[in-house]
Amino acid sequence: MQLKVKFLKWSAGIPVAMLNHKTADKMSVHPEDRINLRTISKYPKEISTIVDVVKGIVKEDEIAISSELEKFLNFKISKKVEVNLAVPPKSLDFIKKKLNNHQLTKNEIDAIIKDVVNNSLSDSEIALFITAVYKYGTNMKETIYLIEAIRKSGSQLRIKGKFIADKHSVGGVPGNRTTPIVVSICAAGGLIMPKNSSRAITTAAGTADVIETIADVEFSIKDLKKIIKKTGACMVWGGGLGMVPADARMMDVERSLKIDPESQLIASIMSKKLAADSKYILIDIPYGKNAKISSREKALRIKRRFERLGRYFKRKVKCFITDGSQPVGNGIGPALELIDIIKILDPKQEGPLDLEKKSLFLAGSLFEMTGKAKNGCGEKMAEEILRSGKAFEKFKEIIKAQNGNLNRLKMAKFSHDIHSIKSGEITEINNYKINSLVRVSGCPVDKSAGIYLYSHVGDKIKKGQKIITIYAESMSRLNEAKRFYEKEKPIVIK
Amino acid sequence: MQLKVKFLKWSAGIPVAMLNHKTADKMSVHPEDRINLRTISKYPKEISTIVDVVKGIVKEDEIAISSELEKFLNFKISKKVEVNLAVPPKSLDFIKKKLNNHQLTKNEIDAIIKDVVNNSLSDSEIALFITAVYKYGTNMKETIYLIEAIRKSGSQLRIKGKFIADKHSVGGVPGNRTTPIVVSICAAGGLIMPKNSSRAITTAAGTADVIETIADVEFSIKDLKKIIKKTGACMVWGGGLGMVPADARMMDVERSLKIDPESQLIASIMSKKLAADSKYILIDIPYGKNAKISSREKALRIKRRFERLGRYFKRKVKCFITDGSQPVGNGIGPALELIDIIKILDPKQEGPLDLEKKSLFLAGSLFEMTGKAKNGCGEKMAEEILRSGKAFEKFKEIIKAQNGNLNRLKMAKFSHDIHSIKSGEITEINNYKINSLVRVSGCPVDKSAGIYLYSHVGDKIKKGQKIITIYAESMSRLNEAKRFYEKEKPIVIK
Repeated sequence: MQLKVKFLKWSAGIPVAMLNHKTADKMSVHPEDRINLRTISKYPKEISTIVDVVKGIVKEDEIAISSELEKFLNFKISKKVEVNLAVPPKSLDFIKKKLNNHQLTKNEIDAIIKDVVNNSLSDSEIALFITAVYKYGTNMKETIYLIEAIRKSGSQLRIKGKFIADKHSVGGVPGNRTTPIVVSICAAGGLIMPKNSSRAITTAAGTADVIETIADVEFSIKDLKKIIKKTGACMVWGGGLGMVPADARMMDVERSLKIDPESQLIASIMSKKLAADSKYILIDIPYGKNAKISSREKALRIKRRFERLGRYFKRKVKCFITDGSQPVGNGIGPALELIDIIKILDPKQEGPLDLEKKSLFLAGSLFEMTGKAKNGCGEKMAEEILRSGKAFEKFKEIIKAQNGNLNRLKMAKFSHDIHSIKSGEITEINNYKINSLVRVSGCPVDKSAGIYLYSHVGDKIKKGQKIITIYAESMSRLNEAKRFYEKEKPIVIK
Repeated sequence: MQLKVKFLKWSAGIPVAMLNHKTADKMSVHPEDRINLRTISKYPKEISTIVDVVKGIVKEDEIAISSELEKFLNFKISKKVEVNLAVPPKSLDFIKKKLNNHQLTKNEIDAIIKDVVNNSLSDSEIALFITAVYKYGTNMKETIYLIEAIRKSGSQLRIKGKFIADKHSVGGVPGNRTTPIVVSICAAGGLIMPKNSSRAITTAAGTADVIETIADVEFSIKDLKKIIKKTGACMVWGGGLGMVPADARMMDVERSLKIDPESQLIASIMSKKLAADSKYILIDIPYGKNAKISSREKALRIKRRFERLGRYFKRKVKCFITDGSQPVGNGIGPALELIDIIKILDPKQEGPLDLEKKSLFLAGSLFEMTGKAKNGCGEKMAEEILRSGKAFEKFKEIIKAQNGNLNRLKMAKFSHDIHSIKSGEITEINNYKINSLVRVSGCPVDKSAGIYLYSHVGDKIKKGQKIITIYAESMSRLNEAKRFYEKEKPIVIK
C-alpha cells in the first residue's frame, strides 16, 4: 500500500510510525506490530518499524514517521512510501540458537546484523542477542564474523598514507578522556588519526559526546575525508557517518541495559578501526574494582584477544593494561571533561596531572609503534609537542574543520557543592556509583551536566572541604543527583 | 510538575506519553527517557512510562497519553497529573545478579515484580529478566517468591465453596483447546470453576483469546464474583481483572520474544490458580517433538515441580503428561477453535474426536479428584453430562453471563484452500511451524484468522485432496501465510 509521509516533528528515540486506525484495519496491522517502509525511487531505501495506531492525527492515506525514521529515509519533502507488513525475522531463531550456547555460522551472524541495521529486530530481540553474547561470549571465528558483518553494515573510509593510527579505550572508567589529547599530539607529530569514537555506554560520556559539546561529530564519508586531508585527523562519531550503523544500534540497547559484553566490545572496537582503515592500533585497557574490566586476568584475556585479531586482520595492535581503580582527571561529563582537556592542551594552563601523564604515555607509545620515535623516546617527543603548543593548535584546527568553536562550551544552568562532613583520607571512589551519579545528573544527553571531582584516592580531606560539585540542566535532575549522592555515597572518607 | 492530560485516541501497544519539546527541555527529559505519572487524588495511582517529544501536537502545559496509560489511570475526563523524572530502577541490578547465576532473595524478587507492574522496567529490561530465568531457571525458594510476588501484584478472588477446581495446560500445542469443554462439563457437574486464562504466548490462541471471540473476558473482581455465583464458573483473562498484572506484562514480552521459560511458566500458572483460590488443580502437560515441552523427561520434571508447589501451598495438584506431538482438533486460531468446541458441546453436532476424548478424560479426572465421582467412574460421568446437553447449556449460560452471544462468532474475510500435490500418508505436522503459520495469518489479534486442519498424522491423503484452509482478515496477511506455508512446509506427506 502506498501512503503519503506526514512529518510530525515527533521524536520517540527509536523509529516509530503512526497509522490511521482505518488503514491499520485494512492492513490488519496492530499496535506494536512491525511494518516495512520502502521509498519509491531508483535506489529505494528500506527499513522496518513498529506501529502506533491513532484516530485523528493522520488521515487514511497518510503515515506519520518519527524523526528517527525521517533521518534514515532522508526525506527533504513529504513523499509517498510503499508500506507492507513485516514478516517475523528469521534471525530471531539464530539469536535463540546462540542463547542455547550453540556456535553461529557466518550466514547466521550476517543475518542478525542485517536485521539489526534495517531495524527488523526490536529492542527486546536485540537485548536477547546481547544477553546471549554476554553469557556465552563468541569464539575467534564468531568474533571475526561479527567484526566483518558490522564493518560490512556501513561504509569504508579509504585514506592514503602509511601512518594511519588510532587509539581506543575499552571504557568504563569515568573521566578517562585521553583520546582528544592523544589525537592532537599524534596528529601534530605527523600521524594520521581518523578517530571514530562511540558515544557513552556505561559511563557518562564517550569521546564523541565530549567533542560534540563544541563541534559537529556526524559527517558524510566525503566530508570526513576532506577534514582528514586538511588536518590529518578527526574526532567523530562512528555510528553517525553510517560507518558502523549496526554497532550504533546495538550500543543503544546496551546503553539502556547498562551491559557491554566483552565479545561485543571487542567486535565493536575492531570493526570501527577496520572501517577507518587504521594500520596501527593502540588499545587502553583500564581495570580495577568497579571498573568495566574488574580484574587483571580479564584485562589480560582481552589484550590477547585483540592481539590475535590484529594478526588475523594484519594490523599492528598494542594493548596497555592501565589503572582503572578510580576516575581519571577531575571533570566527569562531556563539557566538564572538555575543560580538563583544554587545560592540558593549552601550555598557559594547568590540567589534571594524572590525565596528562597517561595521555603522554599513550601518545609516546604510538610514536614508537609507528617508528616516528625510537624506542624509549616516544614520551619525550609527545611532551615536547604538548609543551610547544603545537598539540593545542592541532586540536583547534580539527575542531574548526568539524564546524566547531571553543567558545561554544557552555556551563550547566544549576550546580551544587558537596562538602566533607568529616576529616580523613579518601580511601575509595567507586567508578560504578560515580557513573550512575553522573547519569542521574543528565549525562550523556545533557552535555553540560556531570560532576567535578576535587580530590582522588589517598588525598587528605578536612571537614568542610569541598569534595565535588554537581552540575545539571534542571532543578529536578540536580535534586535527583543530590539524593543519589547522599544515598549511595560514592566517595569514602576514613 | 503538573500537566493536563490530553486524550489522543492513540494506541501504541505499550504505555507511552508525549511531551511538548519545551516542557521536556524544562524537565531535561529526552526521548525514550522514563517519567513517573501520579494522579492527584486521595488514593493516587502511579505509573512509569517512556516519553516521546513533539513539537505541535501537545501544548506546554499538556501531556498526551497512549490508550494503554489511559486504561491504567482510569480517567473518565481529562485531568491533571503530577509528572516527575523517573530514577533508574534498582531492580535492574537484581536482574543482572540473576543473569550472573546468583540466587535472588525475596526482597529482590519483590522489587523486580513491583517494577514490572508500575512499568518502571522497559521491554528490554524485562527481556533481560526473562532471559536470565530462561537460562538459569529458579530454585524452589525463588519459584515460591516469584509466585507470591506475582499473586500479590494483583487482587485476590475470594469465593465460598468446597469444590473450587481448575484445569490448565502448559500450552504450546496448537488447537489443544480442552479448557472451555472441561469447564462446561465440570461446572454442569457441580464443581466451581473460576477459570482465569492467559492469552497466547507461543501459540495462535489462549483460552482467553478464544472466549473473547463471542464474550467479554475482562471484568472487575466484583462482577466476576457475580458471574461465578450465578453460573458456578467463568472463563476470563487473568491479566485483565488486575488479578495478576505482573504476569500479563511479562507475557507481553515473552510473546514478542517467543520464549516461555519453564520457571516463569510454572510461576505464571500457579500464581493464577492461587489468585483464583482454587483448591483442586489439574494440569495438562503435553509433550512432543516441536511442542513447548520437547521431551518426556522435561514433562516429568515440570510435573514434579507442580506437585511440590501444590504441597507447599496446600492445594491438591494432579498433572497428566499427554501427547503433544501434533495439533489437537481441527480449528487453530481463536474463532476456528471455538467452532470445534461448540461442535463437541452441542449433542446435535459432531466435533473432532481427539479433542473430545481428551476433554472427557480431563473432566473425569477432576470429578475423581474432588470426590464427585468414584475412581474409575469420572470419565463416564463426564460423558453423560456432555451427551445430555447439560454441558452445552452451562457453556451458553457462562457466555451469556460474560455479556456474550454465540451469534457473535464471525468468519474471516479471506480464505484459501491448500490441496495435496501428491498421494501418501501424513507423517508429520510440525507444531512449531503451524504456530508460526497461524501467527503470520494474523492470530491472536485477528480472532477469525487461522487455519482449519482436515487430517492428522497417520491419515492417508490423495493427490488433490484438501489439507488445510487458511483464514485471514486482509489479503496481505493471507498472502504472507500462503508464502509461509509453501516455504516452510509444516505438513509432511510421504
